[in-house]
Amino acid sequence: MSLAEFVLPPKENFSEWYHEVIQQAEIMDIRYPVKGLYVWLPFGFKIRQLVYAKLRELLDRDHQEVYFPTLIPEDMLMKESKHIKGFEDEVYWVTHGGLEPLDVKLALRPTSETAMYPMFKLWIRSHADLPLKVYQIVNVFRYETKHTRPLIRLREVTSFKEAHTVHRTYEEAEEQVRQAVKLYKEFYDFLAIPYLVFRRPEWDKFPGADYTIALDTIMPDGRTLQIGTVHNLADNFARTFEIKYETPEGDHAYAHQTCYGISERCIASLISIHGDDLGLVLPFEVAPVQIVIIPILYKGKEEKVMELSRKLYERLKCFRVVLDDSDERPGAKYYKWELKGVPIRFEIGPREAENGEVVVSFRDERKKFSVTFDEITADTIFKWAKDLKERLRSRAVDNAKSKIVVCNSIEEVAEAVEGRKVALVYACEDCERELENYGSVLGRMEEKPEWLDVSLEGSCVVCGGKGYLVGVAKTY
Amino acid sequence: MSLAEFVLPPKENFSEWYHEVIQQAEIMDIRYPVKGLYVWLPFGFKIRQLVYAKLRELLDRDHQEVYFPTLIPEDMLMKESKHIKGFEDEVYWVTHGGLEPLDVKLALRPTSETAMYPMFKLWIRSHADLPLKVYQIVNVFRYETKHTRPLIRLREVTSFKEAHTVHRTYEEAEEQVRQAVKLYKEFYDFLAIPYLVFRRPEWDKFPGADYTIALDTIMPDGRTLQIGTVHNLADNFARTFEIKYETPEGDHAYAHQTCYGISERCIASLISIHGDDLGLVLPFEVAPVQIVIIPILYKGKEEKVMELSRKLYERLKCFRVVLDDSDERPGAKYYKWELKGVPIRFEIGPREAENGEVVVSFRDERKKFSVTFDEITADTIFKWAKDLKERLRSRAVDNAKSKIVVCNSIEEVAEAVEGRKVALVYACEDCERELENYGSVLGRMEEKPEWLDVSLEGSCVVCGGKGYLVGVAKTY
Repeated sequence: MSLAEFVLPPKENFSEWYHEVIQQAEIMDIRYPVKGLYVWLPFGFKIRQLVYAKLRELLDRDHQEVYFPTLIPEDMLMKESKHIKGFEDEVYWVTHGGLEPLDVKLALRPTSETAMYPMFKLWIRSHADLPLKVYQIVNVFRYETKHTRPLIRLREVTSFKEAHTVHRTYEEAEEQVRQAVKLYKEFYDFLAIPYLVFRRPEWDKFPGADYTIALDTIMPDGRTLQIGTVHNLADNFARTFEIKYETPEGDHAYAHQTCYGISERCIASLISIHGDDLGLVLPFEVAPVQIVIIPILYKGKEEKVMELSRKLYERLKCFRVVLDDSDERPGAKYYKWELKGVPIRFEIGPREAENGEVVVSFRDERKKFSVTFDEITADTIFKWAKDLKERLRSRAVDNAKSKIVVCNSIEEVAEAVEGRKVALVYACEDCERELENYGSVLGRMEEKPEWLDVSLEGSCVVCGGKGYLVGVAKTY
Repeated sequence: MSLAEFVLPPKENFSEWYHEVIQQAEIMDIRYPVKGLYVWLPFGFKIRQLVYAKLRELLDRDHQEVYFPTLIPEDMLMKESKHIKGFEDEVYWVTHGGLEPLDVKLALRPTSETAMYPMFKLWIRSHADLPLKVYQIVNVFRYETKHTRPLIRLREVTSFKEAHTVHRTYEEAEEQVRQAVKLYKEFYDFLAIPYLVFRRPEWDKFPGADYTIALDTIMPDGRTLQIGTVHNLADNFARTFEIKYETPEGDHAYAHQTCYGISERCIASLISIHGDDLGLVLPFEVAPVQIVIIPILYKGKEEKVMELSRKLYERLKCFRVVLDDSDERPGAKYYKWELKGVPIRFEIGPREAENGEVVVSFRDERKKFSVTFDEITADTIFKWAKDLKERLRSRAVDNAKSKIVVCNSIEEVAEAVEGRKVALVYACEDCERELENYGSVLGRMEEKPEWLDVSLEGSCVVCGGKGYLVGVAKTY
């Protein structure tokens, strides 16, 4: 089921590169005949499994996994008026079962607050039931009218991880927001993806939330991609859905809630941030194939080469390793496995077989060097994997930095965004909205990245009053 | 989020028992306000994860996991006329996106042949692309008008594992059907669930299939539950969807296909077959809690008891083990963990702590005995787990046997089915249909279970001609 192979466009032409790499590296088949719906191919699905296994591992520390129905009756979905306003243009409606019209229209969940919270009402009686922390990984649906794009803007988001928590007080919910941001940072650090943390402006927060914190990464074309959001819902939904608990004093109080989500955009960022002109570059932990061994066969000298190759394969079997002894030329094999982002490649030719050596190269550097067979232990592999990730992180941070401009005037903001950079600029609450004229306002920076030398406060470039560092960019 | 605790009805009253155990053991919350849709609770979801991990392990031997869209455009779904006839009454239709009607109606997949096969057409070019074997684990939707029941009859099947394969010839597809049946048998053997394998009658095969093989288990009330189906599609779908390949000789031939599925009915059977009056009884491998340690605390003697309990906990940490040192009475703890089917329970009281001993009991037998602390090793645990499964299998087989009646006349069939037994009777192809008057015809038995002493051929009880062993029963 290999797709036709074309040469990949250079990553500089990011949009075409992305479009091609998704197909050529066999992440998704984009030919499904409905706009915004794509097919996960085995290789792509394996990346998804590995990435989401990490997300599960992090959440399982103190959340429980559940699974709620996909279909939400109209009256339930409509109950929270602010919330539904944010979604009503993009909800898919099921109106018929078989040939009959349904009594009550059913929405395909765009997100699950309205499916979950009526059940939370039943689950929560007393302060002893709190906190409640659950999550699910499900498909959600949005009737996108904008330009759709695999993993980034979809009509069916197939891999939506949504967590929902319930607490006693606003402060506890606020603390949970901080914990969730910390968890998301750990997740993206694991993927070596740099992020900026913003408090979204009032006009762009989650419908029904008190406030929204978002993680954005900077894509190769200078547009930002929102890769995680965390919402403090305060008691807004609890009031609508009557989620109350008995306090230790015997009173009844509304609960406070948070929710936070990550979608397959995490995979889009993984592909986009680390990839290069030759294809994917994957961190070791999430690579479906972590190691490839390529025997270089010359007539009459096959035996020794294959012997050492197989010996190496046996030694490394605890990893996801492929011994590529197919009939293709070595060059075609290099091409194929580089496209698929395999972190570590070994080559063994007649000379190596003779000397008990192996040629190594790493996907990011592509320099070749030799090591003796005995040097290749699991510990060596782990060290190489760690170093590779360090290099990916460092390169990704350098790229992010090169796309950020700290601006001292509105004109500089306009120029930066026009030039596909992320503008950071000081603005006060009153003047923040004015920045919308020049790009999307990402909000107020919530915390300083350790790799960026900025202060979070300064004078508003518009009025000169006390300002906060605000991000402005073109966004996905 | 614990649900109110009531006493479980005896398992004899199977329908009520099932209804209650699903809730009390926290498998699902059945209060979601749409018929046929239920909420997986954390404990139930964990069982699902463990059971499906095994299914994945078996399939991953030679299948690849993919994920296709949920939404299928009307024209694609309608393309295979026999197929759609089987589903048209139960397809959910999405007709609106936001406030606008859609140009093309979208079906929620009832199963994925029509979503996948247009893509298979693009993937398959030559004989070298075959066989193709993929699977996905997804939610599918059926507008059920019959009585719905958690895990058994649903409007949203949340855990549908569907495999789809493509081959060169009819014979290769036939061989794949045998392989799939073998795989399903291995899966249910792992769960210690007995099954009967039938070739479904012509009038009850999968819409569009050449023939259907099904696995049925016998529920405690004597009704059968279909827990897996395997279909040889021959080239029926290949002709509709134009799935052709180039043969080694350069001709173009239609491919032959199979598909096979298992849903969360596997969990329904796990609960129903092994459970008892006290709740779930789970095989060790799929128990969310495999071992519980209950310290029996008396005033003044807590320290030594807790010390040994913690020491035991530390030793068993490689398993899913709980040290229940909550404030509840030991009786309440026994009740709770028996309800949840924990296979192995340890109790440690002052006497045990004094003597370095531990009281053991297994969920199925509930007899208590003592072992020394040192005897409890991982190997001991594995042996106990194996023995427990052997006992579960043996009890389940005895139950199944007690519900099967080999009948020598139509009257005996009528009586058996009326008495909630599974009737096995010899019938020829012509007379088989007559049996429909007395119950559902499960089809012709495909292979003799090793635990049942029957011959697969005999004289038709109606006409006296050459007959095959046919199953008749009330079904879920």
